[in-house]
Amino acid sequence: MSSTVFGVDVGGTTVKIGMFDPEGNKQAVWEIPTRTGDSGIYILPDIAASIQKKMADNDIRKDDVLGVGIGVPGPVDETGTVHNAVNLGWGTFNIRETMEGLMGVKVAAGNDANVAALGEQWKGGGKGHRDMVMVTLGTGVGGGILVGGRLVAGYSGAGGEIGHMHIEDDETEACGCGNYGCFEEYASATGVVRIGSRILKATRKASTLRDLPQLTSKDIFAAASAGDEVAVAITEKYGYYLGKGLAIVATVLNPEMIVLGGGVSKAGEDLIRLLKPSFTKYVFHGARDTRFALATLGNDAGMYGAARLVLQQR
Amino acid sequence: MSSTVFGVDVGGTTVKIGMFDPEGNKQAVWEIPTRTGDSGIYILPDIAASIQKKMADNDIRKDDVLGVGIGVPGPVDETGTVHNAVNLGWGTFNIRETMEGLMGVKVAAGNDANVAALGEQWKGGGKGHRDMVMVTLGTGVGGGILVGGRLVAGYSGAGGEIGHMHIEDDETEACGCGNYGCFEEYASATGVVRIGSRILKATRKASTLRDLPQLTSKDIFAAASAGDEVAVAITEKYGYYLGKGLAIVATVLNPEMIVLGGGVSKAGEDLIRLLKPSFTKYVFHGARDTRFALATLGNDAGMYGAARLVLQQR
Repeated sequence: MSSTVFGVDVGGTTVKIGMFDPEGNKQAVWEIPTRTGDSGIYILPDIAASIQKKMADNDIRKDDVLGVGIGVPGPVDETGTVHNAVNLGWGTFNIRETMEGLMGVKVAAGNDANVAALGEQWKGGGKGHRDMVMVTLGTGVGGGILVGGRLVAGYSGAGGEIGHMHIEDDETEACGCGNYGCFEEYASATGVVRIGSRILKATRKASTLRDLPQLTSKDIFAAASAGDEVAVAITEKYGYYLGKGLAIVATVLNPEMIVLGGGVSKAGEDLIRLLKPSFTKYVFHGARDTRFALATLGNDAGMYGAARLVLQQR
Repeated sequence: MSSTVFGVDVGGTTVKIGMFDPEGNKQAVWEIPTRTGDSGIYILPDIAASIQKKMADNDIRKDDVLGVGIGVPGPVDETGTVHNAVNLGWGTFNIRETMEGLMGVKVAAGNDANVAALGEQWKGGGKGHRDMVMVTLGTGVGGGILVGGRLVAGYSGAGGEIGHMHIEDDETEACGCGNYGCFEEYASATGVVRIGSRILKATRKASTLRDLPQLTSKDIFAAASAGDEVAVAITEKYGYYLGKGLAIVATVLNPEMIVLGGGVSKAGEDLIRLLKPSFTKYVFHGARDTRFALATLGNDAGMYGAARLVLQQR
């Protein structure tokens, strides 16, 4: 009888569930809606029921299940306690204990950006690198830190929140978190657009970007690749901030590798070329050899990492 | 027969050696000179001979020795390999293997600021706090990061080099490391003096500090305590930078506690009061509850931490 582990990535609208063997080979993936109503009280029972149905359909008994790992969009500490996941309507409670009560199998829980880092380290762009940082460049900037192959969850579950490092004193617009000058205000997809709008306003140079009804990060990188001079300047400014922020992280942690994920990372190797000059300028010399890689698991990283988390904690 | 562990703190001029029982009770402390000549090849043999003499004098056999831990002023990775400790004349070699060859007992090695953090966590101001950062505010700024009670050595031994985080874009003087705007340029004892000289130049206000032949960090804090207005402004500016830098560290790691050590920490609780406003302004809200404490072991922290390091690795 083979053994099975489930990895669950809880998003604000959809829950993605993966079934894996203990070596991390994917056996099935499916999705269910995230019911965030009534303070999100149905989310975990829905997940438990869906996994139990899958188990019944595949003739998998409880004894065959090594565990269920869960990644959620909010701070989760090492004990599995979530501290306010606003997108899910959740306050503070212990996910691990609750889910173990519902399912009767071993459960582990972590922050979604953190478990994504673990997934990339297990099966993706950071494979085999025990001291690794993953930065997810999406609408916001998420981070996950691995030391000796294990996640740094942080004392109250906020470990790896590198999107909210202060890196710019002159910022006048507030970040979503309420602070001014957070890394996320520049290094996210939204940051690319903010930098772009500012540069477009500050120059009279012609640019194909001026013709667009709404500027996106993707447009800007595409125009830069096509040789648009203003777009090139925008991506260079973006790379400046990305490199500067990651230099601070590398100086603090001296990781072997930084993995770049999220929507902006679709810009590919270009991104690494763009961040290198300011990274090299600002990083401490002892961490100058930090390697960079692109994430390879895309939206599956969270599922893989959640499965890995529960395997690590057995 | 009781068991014994030795903790060794190698400085640029003096080696401090402590003899402890396994619970960390200090049984003896002594010093020997650091012979940095001939690329520092005598340093480890001198230490081994000195410990062996102490063992003979106290009738301690090799079998009674749990291990020897060594902290050195340079980057040391998890395997015990040092990567250029310039103050000792050392290039790259494995301290653990070399010293085990000399002594025939278990050896562990780490960076001095890192093992000092481990010492404070074991027996000092951070006692019992597994997720802890220690910052040593001396001539420079050293850092040590503990996650789950274990040191973050970093891939090439440069973990916790928070003194070299970039925190100020407008700096025109270079840091010792060659970069501009490092945390250490403001948060060290030297930083207090630099901030002081700049403020004294920028104002015409009377200050007792103007009468001093040479400004020191200690003078500035003393004058501030005595109510000197300019000195108060200097310490507030110092607190601003200290809080800002530590806010970045806390945002990345979400530690339970930050322990302040080194010469400047003799300013005591005042220091915590001074750093709090900018810490609270710049830190991510999820890490806002980070607690602060003062180091309590002084120059003994390295010895304690070195002993603890080898006990952890047994």
